[in-house]
Amino acid sequence: MAVRVAVNGFGTIGKRVAAAVVKQPDMTLVGVAKTRPSFEAREALQSGYRLYVTGAGDPAEFEKVGLRTAGRIEELLQDVDVVVDAAPDRVGQENARLYQKAGVRAVFQGGEKSEVAEVSFNALANYAAAKDHRTVRVVSCNTTGLARAAAILTTRWEVDHWEATIVRRAADPAETKRGPLNGIIPTLQIPSHHGHDVNTILPNLHITTTAVVVPTTLMHVHVNNVRFRTGPKSAAELVEALRRTPRFHVFSRWEGIQGTPQVMEFARDRGLGRSDMMENVLWEEGVRVDGRTATFFQAIHQESVVIPEVIDAIRAMFDLAPDAARSIAITDRALGLSGPG
Amino acid sequence: MAVRVAVNGFGTIGKRVAAAVVKQPDMTLVGVAKTRPSFEAREALQSGYRLYVTGAGDPAEFEKVGLRTAGRIEELLQDVDVVVDAAPDRVGQENARLYQKAGVRAVFQGGEKSEVAEVSFNALANYAAAKDHRTVRVVSCNTTGLARAAAILTTRWEVDHWEATIVRRAADPAETKRGPLNGIIPTLQIPSHHGHDVNTILPNLHITTTAVVVPTTLMHVHVNNVRFRTGPKSAAELVEALRRTPRFHVFSRWEGIQGTPQVMEFARDRGLGRSDMMENVLWEEGVRVDGRTATFFQAIHQESVVIPEVIDAIRAMFDLAPDAARSIAITDRALGLSGPG
Amino acid sequence: MAVRVAVNGFGTIGKRVAAAVVKQPDMTLVGVAKTRPSFEAREALQSGYRLYVTGAGDPAEFEKVGLRTAGRIEELLQDVDVVVDAAPDRVGQENARLYQKAGVRAVFQGGEKSEVAEVSFNALANYAAAKDHRTVRVVSCNTTGLARAAAILTTRWEVDHWEATIVRRAADPAETKRGPLNGIIPTLQIPSHHGHDVNTILPNLHITTTAVVVPTTLMHVHVNNVRFRTGPKSAAELVEALRRTPRFHVFSRWEGIQGTPQVMEFARDRGLGRSDMMENVLWEEGVRVDGRTATFFQAIHQESVVIPEVIDAIRAMFDLAPDAARSIAITDRALGLSGPG
Amino acid sequence: MAVRVAVNGFGTIGKRVAAAVVKQPDMTLVGVAKTRPSFEAREALQSGYRLYVTGAGDPAEFEKVGLRTAGRIEELLQDVDVVVDAAPDRVGQENARLYQKAGVRAVFQGGEKSEVAEVSFNALANYAAAKDHRTVRVVSCNTTGLARAAAILTTRWEVDHWEATIVRRAADPAETKRGPLNGIIPTLQIPSHHGHDVNTILPNLHITTTAVVVPTTLMHVHVNNVRFRTGPKSAAELVEALRRTPRFHVFSRWEGIQGTPQVMEFARDRGLGRSDMMENVLWEEGVRVDGRTATFFQAIHQESVVIPEVIDAIRAMFDLAPDAARSIAITDRALGLSGPG
Repeated sequence: MAVRVAVNGFGTIGKRVAAAVVKQPDMTLVGVAKTRPSFEAREALQSGYRLYVTGAGDPAEFEKVGLRTAGRIEELLQDVDVVVDAAPDRVGQENARLYQKAGVRAVFQGGEKSEVAEVSFNALANYAAAKDHRTVRVVSCNTTGLARAAAILTTRWEVDHWEATIVRRAADPAETKRGPLNGIIPTLQIPSHHGHDVNTILPNLHITTTAVVVPTTLMHVHVNNVRFRTGPKSAAELVEALRRTPRFHVFSRWEGIQGTPQVMEFARDRGLGRSDMMENVLWEEGVRVDGRTATFFQAIHQESVVIPEVIDAIRAMFDLAPDAARSIAITDRALGLSGPG
Repeated sequence: MAVRVAVNGFGTIGKRVAAAVVKQPDMTLVGVAKTRPSFEAREALQSGYRLYVTGAGDPAEFEKVGLRTAGRIEELLQDVDVVVDAAPDRVGQENARLYQKAGVRAVFQGGEKSEVAEVSFNALANYAAAKDHRTVRVVSCNTTGLARAAAILTTRWEVDHWEATIVRRAADPAETKRGPLNGIIPTLQIPSHHGHDVNTILPNLHITTTAVVVPTTLMHVHVNNVRFRTGPKSAAELVEALRRTPRFHVFSRWEGIQGTPQVMEFARDRGLGRSDMMENVLWEEGVRVDGRTATFFQAIHQESVVIPEVIDAIRAMFDLAPDAARSIAITDRALGLSGPG
Repeated sequence: MAVRVAVNGFGTIGKRVAAAVVKQPDMTLVGVAKTRPSFEAREALQSGYRLYVTGAGDPAEFEKVGLRTAGRIEELLQDVDVVVDAAPDRVGQENARLYQKAGVRAVFQGGEKSEVAEVSFNALANYAAAKDHRTVRVVSCNTTGLARAAAILTTRWEVDHWEATIVRRAADPAETKRGPLNGIIPTLQIPSHHGHDVNTILPNLHITTTAVVVPTTLMHVHVNNVRFRTGPKSAAELVEALRRTPRFHVFSRWEGIQGTPQVMEFARDRGLGRSDMMENVLWEEGVRVDGRTATFFQAIHQESVVIPEVIDAIRAMFDLAPDAARSIAITDRALGLSGPG
Repeated sequence: MAVRVAVNGFGTIGKRVAAAVVKQPDMTLVGVAKTRPSFEAREALQSGYRLYVTGAGDPAEFEKVGLRTAGRIEELLQDVDVVVDAAPDRVGQENARLYQKAGVRAVFQGGEKSEVAEVSFNALANYAAAKDHRTVRVVSCNTTGLARAAAILTTRWEVDHWEATIVRRAADPAETKRGPLNGIIPTLQIPSHHGHDVNTILPNLHITTTAVVVPTTLMHVHVNNVRFRTGPKSAAELVEALRRTPRFHVFSRWEGIQGTPQVMEFARDRGLGRSDMMENVLWEEGVRVDGRTATFFQAIHQESVVIPEVIDAIRAMFDLAPDAARSIAITDRALGLSGPG
């Protein structure tokens, strides 16, 4: 029987999770919850989702603009096996009590501290760790991107030390109140929190991260420097390994993908929905292996990269698939991700 | 029998026209032509389009990266009734001779001078004018946006004078070589060419336009000041008239659409493909009527707003529909545009 | 004897006012006040200004980082004839009581409502109106730009109606928390408040304004459409009139000033301090006269355009100059503004 | 007797070099040369510089707009001991023959290949190497920033390996034709050329660089990871060493400098001309030492950071100072740089 899923919060993450759940063969979307009426609330209804009111929201506000709601979040929680919390950063922590009281399992986002859940999660890195847990936290977009790459590289080779500079997008495309408009803001905490967050999933990885914020809305870019004890012999070998792995997309030079704007153009043309790019994105010529050191760029679409991970987290919690590979295959086929190649 | 269509050029406009033609009940896409291999060329093949080589392109370059081409543009032209020219600005003029020699009809874009074709075209404004013509030019994105609005307002009321300030996006999302990064560039030609271009379609409209370029990639915004001899009695009357018209989308205040970033977010969620927004976009509270003067903002998605017009142009040229209303209805249903409301 | 001046607030406006006061022959800067220590507080001290603590500030915080303060704002107010309030928007209103209690006159900024002071002010438009008043409000940057232009045009010709579209910069260069990063935000209030604000100075002008916000930090740009009852006969006549007026700078085509980035480059090279451009900026070829209608662009440097107006406001309040022309001449010579030409 | 200097090219670099030469006690600016009339040409004349015509320029074009020229570049070269080439990238190479023919020494910019001159130069790193040479190349802005830091660190400690990620500004403030407007462009050449360029000055440094381009005009930011054989024991020790070095400016946390926008605001307030920041900029809390590894951010003002180096290069070529320290002291006092502290 399909796992019954609620999505609490219907912004950047919530609406994508809802759309992804609907496509899964072993899950059912029971409803979504939102605080205030907006174009997104209407689209939820037009997508056929049942709409509930959450947080400080007032059903009357929805009624007033003709949006029919099915009740409050508490009612929704009574009908589901698991809730995906997609509330703004730090609100998930407050919601945790609500979920516990309702006796439903919960998937939290990376904007919450790791203490919010029993385990932090990434499908390629520690799928099995989520098995049978009642609360799981899918790590943030940047941590997901790093954890995926680290999972592959540490599985095949011996990594001595990983250094990454994270060039962060300053805001999502529709977040119009955030800057900077013109300038670079270094994250004046060294190392940045990202490396520590990767260690919630890969505790033995020696990783150090630094970060800067730049005025773009499209994607983050990671500059990775990986020192191996034993590593790939060539860039080609590393590229080949990643090309054979799900959730990695490696562009070739002839494709003309100069940077994140063209990656997004590719994603718009590919048409998986909302111009999303759920894979780690690499450039074939943006990978170098020199002795025991590999250097490579990867771009991470902050809005969508965690979506397949949320799906896998549910599958792991409910033991719906025998292993990571099988869960990932189901998820990715449902989402239209082309898979390795 | 379906009209057989070729698309020459497979960039921003060409790829959208191809996708739109495929969806029409009375048209067949025979093939698309591109100069160089790129991710877009591969996507053409993956979409099942036959791919031809155009311009200075060399089929061997395509072969080298594994992209199968079906011949050169000249061969494609032999199999079609009409070609949609989607070459870069001013190249269409050069291509015109090629089309003439092949004996095919042609639809050109607004980046060409009006002399390129027998008639300039907008479906709401002068559909009938394209009937039976062999060459038609669909006007540019800004002109299309203005012509649509002017067509509606001049039909219902008597316009004395139209003034518009066009706040132009500096580049398309994937055009990474264009600026300015930080600044406003006034178009130091007053009036700007847009008003004159509207007159190629609505010759009797008294319209004056000015323009500035600003650092954004998403959409243009027009600030319209329309003086009527006899006009709408209230903003509500004007809004209602536009809401009842195809190819206009009016947002209500409660939807939370503050500017073009949220319009694009709406378009991504709506999912008609490539995050496109083919309608003129207005805000209910962004319309004012004061005596005989109406003032209103409208946003125009430069990448997609002309696409339905290209389809209608073909239908007009081949007399496939009895009138504009019928052609627009067919086009918009095929493209998923919701229609008036 | 020189008028003794305090500046309360030492941000974008306050630091410029302080520097301008120091240069005037008939004014003395007694001290400046700031809430918190920062690089700007240190620069105040390095400039030789006495530094006071204002608002919720704590002198101990300044001491801790080695910045010597001379007391609190209340003490500063005892030693001055007038205070220039340069607090953030709406805080000036709160400060008004403080100034009244101290018995000092006050100049407020345009971020306050007009009720904050007895009169709103612009030197070219209504200098005499501030004479002998105890509280004066210098209107905001956009209003200052419009009022200057309107003052000149209404003096020489008969204006029937003025329409302006204000393309606003979204943030100042160092305001890194404000967006939008990519997009245009129309001000969904028509008309915008700017026209009404111009009427606080020129009550008989028939003016309507609309506004959009765009992602730039450098300058605002106004697109003006002015209908005259009797007006200039040619663009050349209008340009000549403005060129002969202080606080207007008209660029010629050969200078290569394409937009606001080059205007700022000019200002950096000119070197009046902080890359400031205190004049209304016009482009010779960006002016058109067609019958009884003039259309012209003007760029306004939001950080500095009001500075000479603040100086003139003080001079008017204390009757230090016989008329506007004389005050403006003194101010502009002191600030290094080249004057008409 | 003062060395007689010409500046060929009067753009971003040339106009700053001219202003800097004028301030030196042991140099004389004979004239500057420009290709076309512009606001900058007029400002050269207003600054009292003699203006010559260079490249494909035509004196008649200058005359036509009232700018008096003193001849062509060839005439200027006859009156000088050294020319500073400030032509666009790669044009310096062409100019080299001209200088050789005129028998004058020449200083080139980092936009030229290293082969353009006998030696590449940075004052802190290899001042003595330029002594008595006839052609010297001052390395580019990024290379200058790296070379300065490396010069200090390698002098005091033993560096094993230096890795830097260079987050590059996409265009200078007035370069309005360059993008990207929204996106990150990785430099798909690993390592980037910068490390190699540092080696033209510090041949024994083991340095690897990667680069990304981001949409800002203000400054570059370097993220440095330095592995030492023997290094500083704490971040405080490293910061102290840099604070005691000329051409480094370290901000403290309380100053409120969050990123490059506030650095530029500081520079505007400081007022050394054109909002320039000629020092390497660091943040006290943006430095970390962990065992034998130091990590630190530094911001580099691309427009001005090389200016003092050009001055020192001239002094080294003509043996005007006994050593680097003395030349730097003269240069920096003349330019108003505060010096160590």
